Amino acid sequence: MRTTLKQIAEETHLSVTIVSQVLNDRECRVSEKNRQLIINTARKLNYRPNKVAVGLVKGSINTIGLAISDIRNDFFSLLAKSVEDECQRAGWNVILCNSNDKHSSDLSNIKMLADSGVSGVIFGMASESTAEMAQECINLMIQEHLPYLLVDRYITSDTGGIVCVDHVEGGHMATKYLLSRGYKKILCITGPNNLIDSEQRLEGYRKALSQFHVPYHDELVIEGKYTYESGEECISRVLEDQISFDAVFAFNDMMAIGAMKRLRENGIRIPEDIGVIGYDDIFMDSFLEVPLTTIKQPTEKMGRAAAQEIIRNHVDYKNNETRIIYKPTLVERQTVLDRT
Amino acid sequence: MRTTLKQIAEETHLSVTIVSQVLNDRECRVSEKNRQLIINTARKLNYRPNKVAVGLVKGSINTIGLAISDIRNDFFSLLAKSVEDECQRAGWNVILCNSNDKHSSDLSNIKMLADSGVSGVIFGMASESTAEMAQECINLMIQEHLPYLLVDRYITSDTGGIVCVDHVEGGHMATKYLLSRGYKKILCITGPNNLIDSEQRLEGYRKALSQFHVPYHDELVIEGKYTYESGEECISRVLEDQISFDAVFAFNDMMAIGAMKRLRENGIRIPEDIGVIGYDDIFMDSFLEVPLTTIKQPTEKMGRAAAQEIIRNHVDYKNNETRIIYKPTLVERQTVLDRT
Repeated sequence: MRTTLKQIAEETHLSVTIVSQVLNDRECRVSEKNRQLIINTARKLNYRPNKVAVGLVKGSINTIGLAISDIRNDFFSLLAKSVEDECQRAGWNVILCNSNDKHSSDLSNIKMLADSGVSGVIFGMASESTAEMAQECINLMIQEHLPYLLVDRYITSDTGGIVCVDHVEGGHMATKYLLSRGYKKILCITGPNNLIDSEQRLEGYRKALSQFHVPYHDELVIEGKYTYESGEECISRVLEDQISFDAVFAFNDMMAIGAMKRLRENGIRIPEDIGVIGYDDIFMDSFLEVPLTTIKQPTEKMGRAAAQEIIRNHVDYKNNETRIIYKPTLVERQTVLDRT
Repeated sequence: MRTTLKQIAEETHLSVTIVSQVLNDRECRVSEKNRQLIINTARKLNYRPNKVAVGLVKGSINTIGLAISDIRNDFFSLLAKSVEDECQRAGWNVILCNSNDKHSSDLSNIKMLADSGVSGVIFGMASESTAEMAQECINLMIQEHLPYLLVDRYITSDTGGIVCVDHVEGGHMATKYLLSRGYKKILCITGPNNLIDSEQRLEGYRKALSQFHVPYHDELVIEGKYTYESGEECISRVLEDQISFDAVFAFNDMMAIGAMKRLRENGIRIPEDIGVIGYDDIFMDSFLEVPLTTIKQPTEKMGRAAAQEIIRNHVDYKNNETRIIYKPTLVERQTVLDRT
């Protein structure tokens, strides 16, 4: 543990109050001899003022918090690196928290960040978060007077600043691409139903189906968890239920990779038998046995923009009307054929 | 910003000292009326005591720091997740810092962690760190009275607790495997020369060569940076220099993946023309076009053990003689042929 005021007080046989006043340059009644004794003792014991507490008074701590939901998903680790790169450039520190997709961890992380005196939080909520849970996190940040910016995931209402991607457009783009290449029965592996970003991709999917006059079938929409394992599990379920499909649109790449693994284990070839499209464009996509066609999120741009915003707006935590919404793009690789 | 004692003092027209004494339950001369006024005002303004400052006095903050060097390398993100899983189980928080392999960031992260009042630090130094830089970090942690544990990377001398892998054994295992399968001219893509963990793998490489009576050639050892890009660059250099080799031993998987990419771009087939073995066993290894044979580090075990150690020993930052050294294992996939 670091040296405390109490230790200095004990060493000098003076009161904690006097020691604190001297070391914090506050006015106080103390002899010059004792003042020097305190300063020398503090030096000897390597006392350093608590930057956090000092910052709380002076409002000068250059640290932001970044809360992500799944550090093992390359989308989030790239996001984190981009935030850090930008902060490093600006001379700011980053405290990183990972919730492992647990809402309870989001809450304890927010409390910890508030206690650490960060100037603002870039917040990517856990994938298990319902709208109520997300609101609970937001309320906590407001209560803690913490400026925040929601990144990637958000909830409908006017809940503060947002940096994200137009996922209706992304879902539409992926589905249209498959339909225009002759695929008709597109299996959707969605994210958790509670998440707006998944709901939006699904909205884009339905929009494209309707434009191509392809009927929507409930049985072709199956809920995943945005993890590799859930991609595998969803495929196992539809194969067991003997649901017929000719393509898979996975709402993120980790699930697409899990889905492809399970498909191949069942002797199904990609792209010859089944076409696959993912979402995110993570690092490993282009190294896969069959490189993954996907919808790219501009992850680095998002991280940099979020960092810039939170640095710029860090005192204005109310009425934050920042809305930075990027367009997704299509990255064609080899998991989709042209069947027309 | 959160509510400060000063704001409560202003609101109540009482002194900061009195407010502080009341809210910290210290003895002081104050009327019951004023005591209630302070408590009610603190409640109204949603004042929360600074857990960090309180912890500094009481020694009770259940937070550890984890400093990693490259969040985009799956080895480190799995390590981080394992530390967090273990801490979550024990009811501890984790503050994560990423240095992006910059020594200067290691130093500022350690200072930030000290200021945040963490009970201890699990420290994986930046890959650019020389022994002197590593010692500088260690000295800073000692100076800050921060219990620490070096994870993955360490320096020679008695520098405190360590959780790592026997890399001499790992280097020996990889090289022996290639030699026993008939490969003779093994190109080594090492880590940065300043790092002991790279030096040790190289020691294992030389040991195996000598056992198999294969001469050591300087030109077959080339320095990488543990990044994907450096794997590509090293291959470009040796191809340009027309150095003849029949296998590659990359000292981590990210470099192995970069090396394979560049080899294939030059029309060289894996494993038919060149055998490749990596080191780490990261998630994407088994999904590659040709799944990567590698030396596995027990990353999850290392993360859990480090967390347990730092939680258990967090008060004893001096004379930490923890030495947890795991044995690596070989994971056979498809990048090495049997040529005998």
